[in-house]
Formats: sequence, C-alpha cells, structure tokens
Amino acid sequence: MALIDDLVAALGAAHVLTGADMARHARDWMGKYRGAPLAVVRPADTAEVSAVVKLAAAHGVPVVPISGNTGLVGGTMTTGGVMVSLERMNRIRAVKRDARLVVAEAGVILTRLHDAAEAEGLYFPLWFGARGSAMLGGVLSTNAGGSNVLRYGSTRALCLGLEVVLADGRVLDLMGELHKDNSGYDLKNLFIGAEGTLGIITAAVMKLVPAPRAHATATVAARSLPDALVLLNRMQEATGGRVEAFEFMPRTYSERLRVARPDLGLPFDDIPEVTILIEAATTVPAEATPDAAGEVPLVGLLETVLADMLEAGLITDAVLARSEQQRRAMWARREAAAEITLGLTPAVDTDVCLPLDRVEGFLTTVLARLEALDPGLKSLTVAHLGDGNLHFTAFPTRDEAELKDRVMEVVEDVVAGLGGSFSAEHGVGLSKLNSMARRKNPVALDVMRAVKAALDPEGRMNPGKVIPAG
Amino acid sequence: MALIDDLVAALGAAHVLTGADMARHARDWMGKYRGAPLAVVRPADTAEVSAVVKLAAAHGVPVVPISGNTGLVGGTMTTGGVMVSLERMNRIRAVKRDARLVVAEAGVILTRLHDAAEAEGLYFPLWFGARGSAMLGGVLSTNAGGSNVLRYGSTRALCLGLEVVLADGRVLDLMGELHKDNSGYDLKNLFIGAEGTLGIITAAVMKLVPAPRAHATATVAARSLPDALVLLNRMQEATGGRVEAFEFMPRTYSERLRVARPDLGLPFDDIPEVTILIEAATTVPAEATPDAAGEVPLVGLLETVLADMLEAGLITDAVLARSEQQRRAMWARREAAAEITLGLTPAVDTDVCLPLDRVEGFLTTVLARLEALDPGLKSLTVAHLGDGNLHFTAFPTRDEAELKDRVMEVVEDVVAGLGGSFSAEHGVGLSKLNSMARRKNPVALDVMRAVKAALDPEGRMNPGKVIPAG
Repeated sequence: MALIDDLVAALGAAHVLTGADMARHARDWMGKYRGAPLAVVRPADTAEVSAVVKLAAAHGVPVVPISGNTGLVGGTMTTGGVMVSLERMNRIRAVKRDARLVVAEAGVILTRLHDAAEAEGLYFPLWFGARGSAMLGGVLSTNAGGSNVLRYGSTRALCLGLEVVLADGRVLDLMGELHKDNSGYDLKNLFIGAEGTLGIITAAVMKLVPAPRAHATATVAARSLPDALVLLNRMQEATGGRVEAFEFMPRTYSERLRVARPDLGLPFDDIPEVTILIEAATTVPAEATPDAAGEVPLVGLLETVLADMLEAGLITDAVLARSEQQRRAMWARREAAAEITLGLTPAVDTDVCLPLDRVEGFLTTVLARLEALDPGLKSLTVAHLGDGNLHFTAFPTRDEAELKDRVMEVVEDVVAGLGGSFSAEHGVGLSKLNSMARRKNPVALDVMRAVKAALDPEGRMNPGKVIPAG
Repeated sequence: MALIDDLVAALGAAHVLTGADMARHARDWMGKYRGAPLAVVRPADTAEVSAVVKLAAAHGVPVVPISGNTGLVGGTMTTGGVMVSLERMNRIRAVKRDARLVVAEAGVILTRLHDAAEAEGLYFPLWFGARGSAMLGGVLSTNAGGSNVLRYGSTRALCLGLEVVLADGRVLDLMGELHKDNSGYDLKNLFIGAEGTLGIITAAVMKLVPAPRAHATATVAARSLPDALVLLNRMQEATGGRVEAFEFMPRTYSERLRVARPDLGLPFDDIPEVTILIEAATTVPAEATPDAAGEVPLVGLLETVLADMLEAGLITDAVLARSEQQRRAMWARREAAAEITLGLTPAVDTDVCLPLDRVEGFLTTVLARLEALDPGLKSLTVAHLGDGNLHFTAFPTRDEAELKDRVMEVVEDVVAGLGGSFSAEHGVGLSKLNSMARRKNPVALDVMRAVKAALDPEGRMNPGKVIPAG
C-alpha cells in the first residue's frame, strides 16, 4: 500500500511494523481491547512524527499515538489507523536543578524521570503502580493522577511546557519554562488530557520538587471513613499540608489481597473495615533529622497524632513504618491493586471522584442499588481517598454487555447525585464514551466538538475516543 | 435603536446605561484607554447575561464584559459594542468550609472573598494592590497573579469550576467542585485568561486554603539580585516551601517612593541597590505559637536565616516586622507601585516573566539598550521576584507612538533572548497586540485563531483583543 511505502521511505523499514510485528501494540496490556492498526511506526524524533502525520493526512488515514501502553480505557486502539509509538523518543533533553524542571520526550518512562530527578536531589512527583512502564506522553494525554496528587496535583499541575504535532503535521512549540505566561489562550491545557484527539504530544517541560528528606508512613485501621478522615485533617493541620498520600483499602480489598497475594502479608490480625495508608514527607532538615533518641521529628509527629486518635477511639490500630523496607512493604500492598483486581472477570471498573465527605455514602448507596440490580454481584474498591477518587470495580454475576452497562449506569447515577464525576484520572478512551454521552453537560460536549472540528477538521486524530458520536 | 429597546425590555431601563451614564465604564481607571460603547448593561444574573448576549447576536453587535475595571491593558474597551458590566452579579453563592471552596459570581470584589474566607478560618490567596476593586470575573479573564503566586499559583490554579455564557448565549456549566475530573477536554482553562474573547465568565468555584496562623515578614537590603535569591532558597529550604511572597524593589523604585509617598517612609537610611520584601506564613500551631520568650518560631527561623546572611555579607541590612502594623507598613510600600508608577507619562509599562537567574541580566541589558535607543530614558521596576515576574516601566524622553513601540520591542527582544515571556499576569488586551504579533509562535497564533473561530464564529466576543489581526 502506498502509505506504508511512504512511511518506510520516511522512517526506514525497521521502524514501520506490520502484521505479527504489531502484536505488542495492537492490544492493551489487560487484553481487554484489541485493534488492527494499518501499521505501527516508531519515529525517532519530533520531525519524524510530523512527517508521519503529514503522510497520514495525505492518505486520509487516522493517526493514533501510543506510548507505554499502560492505559485502562482503550484509548490507543485503532482499526485501520497508523499507530504512532513514541517509544524511541526517550531522550531526557535537560534536567535543570536550579529551575527545578526536566525537559523530556514523550517516550520517557516515568521511573527514568524519577531517577533523573533524584540524581539532582529533586523529586518527580507523579507516582503510581505502572510507573515502570508508563511514559510521559500517555501520562500527559490522560492527565494521569496517582498517589501524590493530594500534595502535588495531577499531571496537568506539573506541566510547564508542551510540544505537540498537530493534525496537519505542524509542530506547536509551547515549551516554555516559566511559571507565569499569559500570552494568549491556554493551549497547553487543551492538549493535556485530550488523549491524542487534538494532536500528538511529543515532549514536555515538567516541574520537579525538592526531594523529601524524610517520610512518615503508617498503615491505620479504623471503623469508618468519617473517623479515618479525621486523621487526614489532623496530620494536614499538624504539618501544614505535608501529607503526600492518603489511600483507602476497604475490607473487600484486604480480603482479596490475602487470597491473591499472601506473600505481601496483612498489617492487622483481624481485617478492619477501613485500612488507610498515610504518608507525609518533609524537605526541612529540622523535621527530618533524628533527635537524640533517634526519632525523626516528622515521624514522631505522626506517632503523636495516631496515639491521640487511638486514645479517642477514632482508630483501632496503627503500624508505623520504621524503615524504608517497611515503608515499601506498605506501598506494595496498595500497589497490588491493579494486579489483584484487573484479572477478575466479568468486571466493570470505574474511576470516580466524589467530595471527600460523600465517599462513605457513595459506597453504601451504590452497593445497595447494585445488589438490587444483580443479586450476588461482588465488588472491590481502592481509593486515593485524599482526592475523593475511588477505583470501584463491580463483578456482575453474568458476562453480559447490557448488564455491565446497567451496572455502569447505576454507578454514574449515584456519583452524579452526590456531585461527583464519572471520570477522575484514567481517561475516557473507549470505556467511558457511554458515560460521556449520558452524563456530560450537553453544552460542554458541543464545545468539545467545536474545538475538535477546529483543530482536527478531518477527524483523523485518534478518532472515536473521548467525545461520543453526536 | 432596536437593540437598546430590546435590552431595556430585558433588563429594565435602570440597567441599560447610555450617553453620559456610561462615563465610568467607557474609560479605564488610568485614563489611558477610552471607548464608546453602544450601551452599558448591568444584568442581575446569568440568565440576563445570556439574554443580553442573545440579543446582541440577533443584532450582530459585539459584546464586551467588564467587572472591576482595574485592568492595565485596555481589555474592556469597545467602540460600538454592548458592554456587559458584571457589577450587580455580586453574590457569594456558598462558602464550604470543609471542602475549602467558595462559589461566587463574577462581580464579587476580591476583598469580599477575603472576608468571606476569613470568617470560616480560611484564606483566599489572590492578593494584589487592586483587591478592593478588582472583581472575580476580570481576575479569571486575565488569569491574574499578584503577590502570593509563589505559594498558591495564579488564578488558574485556584479555580475548580466555571460558568460561562457562550457567544450564542448558551450557558456552559462547568461548576464542578472536584479536585479530579477528567471527563473530556479541559474547557475551564480555555476560558480562564481568554479576556472575554471566547465567552463571558459569570461565576466560579474557587479554592480556599487554611488561614495562616502566623506570618514572618521582613524588608531586606542587598547588593545584588543573586545575593538576594540566596535568601529565597534558604527560607524555602528551612520552611519546606512556606514563603508566600518575595518582592523586589530596586533603587529606582525606592527613590521614586521617597518622592511620591514620603508618608510611607523608607526602611533603610541609605537606599540599597536591592530591597526585598519577604513573607513566609504557617498554618501549623507549633510554628505559630509564641515560645516562652514570646518569639513566634517561624519569625525566629527567618531571623536566624537573616542573621546568617548578614554575617556572610550576602545582605547588608534587614528589618523584621514585629507587629501586624509593621507588616502592613512594609506591604504599603510595595503596594504603592501602581500609584507611584502609572501616573508618570509618557510611559511604556511591561509585565514580563523571566527565569529567576536571568532577572539581573535582563535589567542590565535592557537598560543599556534603551539608553542607546533613547538617551535620557528613565525607568522604574518592581517585581514578584519569586516568580521571575517584573513590572518594568520605561519613561521615554518623548511621547511618540513609534518611539514607545520601539522601546517595547527592545524589551521583548531582551526577554525573548533570555527565554522569558512578554506577558506574565496583566493580560494582553490591546496593549500587547503588537507583541503578540511579533513574538508569539505563529503556529500557536493559528491555533488560537482556530479556537476563536470555532467558539465565536461571528467574532463578536470582545473583538480585537488578545489575538492580533491575521
């Protein structure tokens, strides 16, 4: 085919994959979505991405970007399109210690950003289970979240500048390194979270923060979410906002963890209703340096807060991490979430956000309504509770598309009634198109369609994602 | 005229101003820009804004929003358009203490938000000299900055949700209260900073933060900017990022202040090259509660850092605020900037952003180049140094449009060469259209034009602002 020939001429045959060579890219890592790309191309730099997009435009063929392929929503699937893998664009162009930023290409894996920051005494605060595979381009395209959003914000909040290849192949250079720049519309944020439907992100300038000198980490047992939230408030007050993570694992999660990953152990002999992983961190030498008794002041502070709450009966047990090894073990139990959840089928996985004080009400209501819909349905939840962000997965008793969509509708319904969002941090992709059609403000959908038509008039950039058919 | 009649029918005659009644709105507060609106209307609520925009659309007349009229860039000027004043839309719809947010209409003055937050033990961290007049709508439309951006970010970073009346009069409801919501494109940030050219912001959900329990404030004298920046770094490290303001007043500023506002006094007998106003704040009881000697720990910390720097010769003098009254006096000297600068003519005022370590180089280079261009030209600078944001005002020797534009070009040139932006926090309006045409990436300008055409196909929303003619 003429387009393939043109792509080979532009990139070299080694970087234009077809047939069986595309297997790794043509399906998502869970095996939930499968596509049939025309070809998978692996450009070496921004100019080659631009060339590919121009060739695809000349042939009227869709273009779909893919980076680490760790997405959960089918955002990179294509049938008949050219899949642009950013994996070879893996250069860290610069790490600037004084300016606290890193300039990196879309194919850089997050752990490499973590390492590059650490080498300069800094920290790149995007942190989630898939960090060893997820790449910067995909993280930006989905406005990914993770465990540290409470302190540092989502990907959007960490991005200073962006480079994007537009639908016509032109390169939009927004690679500013400034913290203030009001020169016209905020185009950067338009492309972040657009999942490749408005252009392909090829590079970015990302903020770094001072590396924590000490962490205070604990796993805590409580009877209820309102009780547990007192801990968040007290630690935030006592530290002036230094809580980095506040993760919630309900009884169902702990029970599943015990079965699926017995090697990870459980922190408490009896599984509590509510297990919380809390972590605070400080960059202040005085808060991080052990005192004469060997106690790190920040850890002592957490210990005091926990002791007070135990005494008041607000929590029922707590374990402090006394070493980096213990801290890692606590995180391993939380980060097993994808592994122990996503293997189970049939499943309806959701990614909702709620006001913090509505999370308990959400769970109570949604479980009652789902039990009425499908008696025997099971569920598993894990949550970035500090953000009000729940990954609630329902396991219906039958693998029927209609039943699964009704389950999704019930979740959406309850979320909408509580002022929440059906989409928090995983993106929309294919999996939430029905939710977008049902729940998104129709005026907002119209504006999105107008923006899409303006920037991609031929509808060739990752078509069929994010915006439901009109 | 038919449109006036229709507006009167919709809003009542009392809220459709024409002729001399428009005087207050038809010019900016500096008297630098003058317009000739067809009428000034004062809608009571969002539905009335929508009605006005629909009527203007039916008559093919432009619509220009205005709120506090404290802008510096001519962003609200119109000749022949309907000016929509948001001043009657001054309701604070809700203050939610636990969720730390306020829901307010576009006509709410910032000091009312400060007061409403304070009543709940919270703080609304947008803070600048015009806070007693500036209204939320204008602040959002220009993505305003101010003195606390270093700690809390610009307006954009503080906005959770937005309500916008679109060019066709429909209401776009993006009034979410969540910290995570990835349901499609980020439309909110598209309207923030768009200066009314894509729609009229009528209400917003804004973040609040815990109210500081104590401040540590000092005025510091130094010989050079690199020396002064050591203070910022040391205090950020010692406090873990609790510096809220780091303001720079060079010798020229202090000299002008002495002449124009002798009542405010000067902190040092001899005017130093560099005067810095630094302020840190804490919400932590332990850092805010006076010790046995009556010393607030945070203040003691600043004192220690300053003493070390004095000893090392990095600063030459320092005065700590020992009372709220002393703190206010220090801020009064900084906040007189607009008053003591903007009265002087002929003037070219700029609002540039630079990497922090390039600010000194900028000043040296730009002053040399301007002296070559216009011998005898004077200047005055004041800066949010912690953000790299300088308000550099040049006073050319002749009031000639061409000379003033050449002065602006020189500033742009030097800024561009140092990786900065010609527009930091005041907006573009009319005053920076030439700069946009000369300096903004042409691809970015094309994308802006495409977005503008998509959302305002008839070009009636604040026409002629932000985007230069193509």
